[in-house]
Amino acid sequence: MEVDGTLLTLLGISAGILILMGWVEQIYKGYKTKRLKDVSKFLMIFIAAGSILWLLYGIIVSDVFIIGTNMSGLILMIIVLGMKKRYDIRANASQSE
Amino acid sequence: MEVDGTLLTLLGISAGILILMGWVEQIYKGYKTKRLKDVSKFLMIFIAAGSILWLLYGIIVSDVFIIGTNMSGLILMIIVLGMKKRYDIRANASQSE
Repeated sequence: MEVDGTLLTLLGISAGILILMGWVEQIYKGYKTKRLKDVSKFLMIFIAAGSILWLLYGIIVSDVFIIGTNMSGLILMIIVLGMKKRYDIRANASQSE
Repeated sequence: MEVDGTLLTLLGISAGILILMGWVEQIYKGYKTKRLKDVSKFLMIFIAAGSILWLLYGIIVSDVFIIGTNMSGLILMIIVLGMKKRYDIRANASQSE
């Protein structure tokens, strides 16, 4: 099948943007509710680890798109992990009062 | 830079598996606590949409690995979405009693 490079690039970029938008929405929801208790810490740790490997992959094949999406994915994971830690501590503190 | 295909395949496969493991852990946590309220519905919808595009990408370039990871990612998203819907309904029902 004759593969159209532009179509592939478009597919890859839109998929990457959609996934990032999902995490931005999760951050917004967490910020609004100040609660991320149900979000699994390991989900974010595993996804961050996966993003690091994809980042390596992107650097090796010098694909700026893969590097860009996974760098931003990694930053979003670190933000959500930080928020979750803060809100979980706060929730536990208010429970023990 | 001379790119070693096997290293790339290994990186891609391990990244994909790590990310899937993250979602399996989220499903397990949700199942244990019967709560997924803090997990954003749009996070899963956006990631499912992104997985569909990556699936198309994988089909076009006939890359079984990309197809496999994103097919399983899609299935996991549908499972988490279904669980979230059920637990949110249950939580709302018990609140209104």
